[in-house]
Amino acid sequence: MTDSVRDLPDAEHPLESVRTRRRFLLEASLATALAACGRPEQRGGGEHKEGAEARGRGAPQANVHQSRTGDRNPDSQIDTTLHHAMPSSSAVDTTTTASNVQFHRYDPALPPVSAERTTRLHFTSRDANIRVNEDTVIAAWTFEGDVPGPIVHVRQGDTIEFTLTNHGRIPHSMDFHAAQINPKTAFRSIMPGESLSFTFSPKYAGVYLYHCGTAPVLMHLGSGMFGALVVDPPTPLRKAKEFVLVQNEYYLGGAQNGIAPLDYTKMLVTLPDLFAFNGRPGQYDAAPIHVKQGDLVRFYIANAGPTHSCAFHVVGEQFDTVYLGAPPANAIHGVQTFDVAAGGGMIFEMQADVAGEFVFVNHSFGHGQKGAIGRLIVDA
Amino acid sequence: MTDSVRDLPDAEHPLESVRTRRRFLLEASLATALAACGRPEQRGGGEHKEGAEARGRGAPQANVHQSRTGDRNPDSQIDTTLHHAMPSSSAVDTTTTASNVQFHRYDPALPPVSAERTTRLHFTSRDANIRVNEDTVIAAWTFEGDVPGPIVHVRQGDTIEFTLTNHGRIPHSMDFHAAQINPKTAFRSIMPGESLSFTFSPKYAGVYLYHCGTAPVLMHLGSGMFGALVVDPPTPLRKAKEFVLVQNEYYLGGAQNGIAPLDYTKMLVTLPDLFAFNGRPGQYDAAPIHVKQGDLVRFYIANAGPTHSCAFHVVGEQFDTVYLGAPPANAIHGVQTFDVAAGGGMIFEMQADVAGEFVFVNHSFGHGQKGAIGRLIVDA
Amino acid sequence: MTDSVRDLPDAEHPLESVRTRRRFLLEASLATALAACGRPEQRGGGEHKEGAEARGRGAPQANVHQSRTGDRNPDSQIDTTLHHAMPSSSAVDTTTTASNVQFHRYDPALPPVSAERTTRLHFTSRDANIRVNEDTVIAAWTFEGDVPGPIVHVRQGDTIEFTLTNHGRIPHSMDFHAAQINPKTAFRSIMPGESLSFTFSPKYAGVYLYHCGTAPVLMHLGSGMFGALVVDPPTPLRKAKEFVLVQNEYYLGGAQNGIAPLDYTKMLVTLPDLFAFNGRPGQYDAAPIHVKQGDLVRFYIANAGPTHSCAFHVVGEQFDTVYLGAPPANAIHGVQTFDVAAGGGMIFEMQADVAGEFVFVNHSFGHGQKGAIGRLIVDA
Repeated sequence: MTDSVRDLPDAEHPLESVRTRRRFLLEASLATALAACGRPEQRGGGEHKEGAEARGRGAPQANVHQSRTGDRNPDSQIDTTLHHAMPSSSAVDTTTTASNVQFHRYDPALPPVSAERTTRLHFTSRDANIRVNEDTVIAAWTFEGDVPGPIVHVRQGDTIEFTLTNHGRIPHSMDFHAAQINPKTAFRSIMPGESLSFTFSPKYAGVYLYHCGTAPVLMHLGSGMFGALVVDPPTPLRKAKEFVLVQNEYYLGGAQNGIAPLDYTKMLVTLPDLFAFNGRPGQYDAAPIHVKQGDLVRFYIANAGPTHSCAFHVVGEQFDTVYLGAPPANAIHGVQTFDVAAGGGMIFEMQADVAGEFVFVNHSFGHGQKGAIGRLIVDA
Repeated sequence: MTDSVRDLPDAEHPLESVRTRRRFLLEASLATALAACGRPEQRGGGEHKEGAEARGRGAPQANVHQSRTGDRNPDSQIDTTLHHAMPSSSAVDTTTTASNVQFHRYDPALPPVSAERTTRLHFTSRDANIRVNEDTVIAAWTFEGDVPGPIVHVRQGDTIEFTLTNHGRIPHSMDFHAAQINPKTAFRSIMPGESLSFTFSPKYAGVYLYHCGTAPVLMHLGSGMFGALVVDPPTPLRKAKEFVLVQNEYYLGGAQNGIAPLDYTKMLVTLPDLFAFNGRPGQYDAAPIHVKQGDLVRFYIANAGPTHSCAFHVVGEQFDTVYLGAPPANAIHGVQTFDVAAGGGMIFEMQADVAGEFVFVNHSFGHGQKGAIGRLIVDA
Repeated sequence: MTDSVRDLPDAEHPLESVRTRRRFLLEASLATALAACGRPEQRGGGEHKEGAEARGRGAPQANVHQSRTGDRNPDSQIDTTLHHAMPSSSAVDTTTTASNVQFHRYDPALPPVSAERTTRLHFTSRDANIRVNEDTVIAAWTFEGDVPGPIVHVRQGDTIEFTLTNHGRIPHSMDFHAAQINPKTAFRSIMPGESLSFTFSPKYAGVYLYHCGTAPVLMHLGSGMFGALVVDPPTPLRKAKEFVLVQNEYYLGGAQNGIAPLDYTKMLVTLPDLFAFNGRPGQYDAAPIHVKQGDLVRFYIANAGPTHSCAFHVVGEQFDTVYLGAPPANAIHGVQTFDVAAGGGMIFEMQADVAGEFVFVNHSFGHGQKGAIGRLIVDA
């Protein structure tokens, strides 16, 4: 390890070598282990000097992440031209404190589709402190200042005229899963202060993730830059109470002023601290979703990940229909639980024939227990 | 961390705050790291005093788990009224030792469906020591004294009159995935000594998980409280040799008298020690399942998790049909391996045209290798 | 733990007991933790003597892996007669160094199907050092000297006459997922220098994994012994540009002469170091796949695992068709991302109507970021 540390590429080198990446992963494990074993400074015997030194020297390196061998930008290749060193976690704005950040519930209702056949969207990418529950405020990277970004609702064949303006501190970009478009230009990264525009027309109906595709995508997805686009089929689905739930994972770094950064190292380790539907663990348990007995209920589930699938389930109900692909086709019927892949989306329908309190959950309970859970109240 | 430890809510406080939960997760990591690094007391330098103190103080806190923010009961909201401190692992009955606990094979055969259209079930929830293999006895929480609980077999539209009596030491409940019913009342938690009854009629055919839904569900699922309900479609599927395999994960704590508790901390870490079909790692490798050449073989796979999917596969065969939803529709054909979500169920059919020894396995081999494996012998 | 170490079965004992296996898992965690915390010898206080002693004594034990209780050979039961101690990681040939091992790109193009209806294959199993990227050379176990092994392409109903000759140093075997055959004889393990032959005819079309099924399968799969067999349906699918991508995970041990062994301990921990399509992380990012605008593009995705599913996605495109089972049936349409189970295979089709650079990726980004990523260039 001494040698591999000694011959590390220079911190300014634009490419993160695999060796650096592997050391970075090692440090990730180290950080995790040290976090688990208590505060690093409390553990310090002489035996850790080299490790500490490696960490100290390694930190700037770890922030460089344009690699040709697996850790480079997967979604927006064009920004390999940018070659910026980026933080290994989102930065905390220490001019404020957690107590100044108010909680707000994210409205899960699918907004109505516009009567217009062209939807004009102007999103900003920007940093924002988000209170995700009573005790946790995160230093998020966002679209439009929230996690997830806005729910967009259009029809198949509509035109979306999209503009992104980067109000963040590092390059960002936009990748719409519903767009059939050249990512090299449309989904390219732009520098702070810059804007880009592109136009697309969704080819298929369904619920589609959108997210920042700037390298490393794991970090941008994991820091809050995602949202959902719902595309109606040409003949609308049967009238229903419609809700959008975007699942994501949080990997928290050590808080400053009570505000926790999102930690790239832990994202690579893939063992999340929290899960959420629409950004806030358990928010729909504290403030449930309401429908009426007799309603058809349609959940649009998008899974932002960044890594784990979502085993969507409603306690006390079965799904009459799950659309594995574009609705109204591609349906299966009579389903208790189905996995939605990270980066995927599926539509789950149930007939709310029974009044009561129905918990919806990621039935991968080691994950659901960490916050991917809520309540649907069916009022009589 | 010092601060977060100091201002912990009182141990008697009914709500586990997120801070407590996060500290609990930290301790979980700590416990894992310490287990990995040797016995805690062997590592002890002064640098761990605070950690040890935190653990010591934290233990009672960690046992409280009714949180409003992600770690509360997801399936049985009504028991938020109960607010009991529960153990962070199942308790070992030290009046016995592992050597007194005999192994028995769990019969995977689907029991015949009753001629009656009403099935009356009276289950008890109770603690039981279960020998899961030659060297491991677990202190399980069970339905009817075994892991999994009894296999139930009915027809779509049948009536199930169910009663649960809690012979355990903490609140328990019952959540049937096949029931369309108000969980707030039917799946509510009951105290030791209490009983509850409810009646339901399965809306769809298929193989459905049932499990205790008391908070934290992860702990109750992970401690053995699950089983399978098979629902035949109105027109029975083609005659076959039918078997039920419920996959689950075990997270083992340190044994006392040779009996290992199930460890909630490790369940949250999501890296299982063992996997099993029907509760016992590798039991159908040691004592295989037999069919005859020419038989149609139907596997009902229910995945209790609590967390990981099951990539079901039979070596040397392909599945002619996998039912993703309710049979006989919702079928795909010509499949080597398919993932069953945690909390889900699917039916896998193969024509046993070739005699021989066919291993069935969770082909996620980092999991299958830990015990989700068995043999199907096709006798000529 | 002292006791469980003391009464370990003798190193020559052919069966690995569960106790041994659990200790092995403990050591696996230990190794991981120690790797994370710095070099073991740098941490050494007296408090680790027992741990070190246990490791020292345990090493030979850990290499024995024919257990009746979950860690024995799942795919090739016949080799329970072999009972060899095997290495806990692949062995590095120290007669060479990494600098002598050249990188070569693995051609992802589906080779044409033979005009003959009988395909004769003679594979050797053999150890090979493979450069998987600029900085990593692995000591792989292979079929035909590469990872993955050769892509095989036949038609449904064709005859495959297969011979395996074992040029490795330990027992190996071959398990074709497309074969309906008795594994006990056809997929049996053979000793170094031995050969075996069997003949089969694929029952279903699709993309099928093949792999070594010798115990422990996790180790043989995880060390590189896998590949893909594509079976065309009787009526060929529509003409397309066809590519085969086999995803796998790498778990790297400490390098010798710059060559990293594959580490069984880390495979059991299930947190991979690298992911790859066709054995080399990011190779199709460095040297992309090219098609022409207007082409139908068909990806045959086989997932070797050993453990994690693959959430296949193409940035800037949607899949017009994903075949969940045998083509041309079992199709869903209008899909952004779908999970392919470990040990499974699915076919993904997209119409390349737009010119540009389209990244394909495992959208489980904690995994994709580690190398399961590449670029499809659609030339105008």
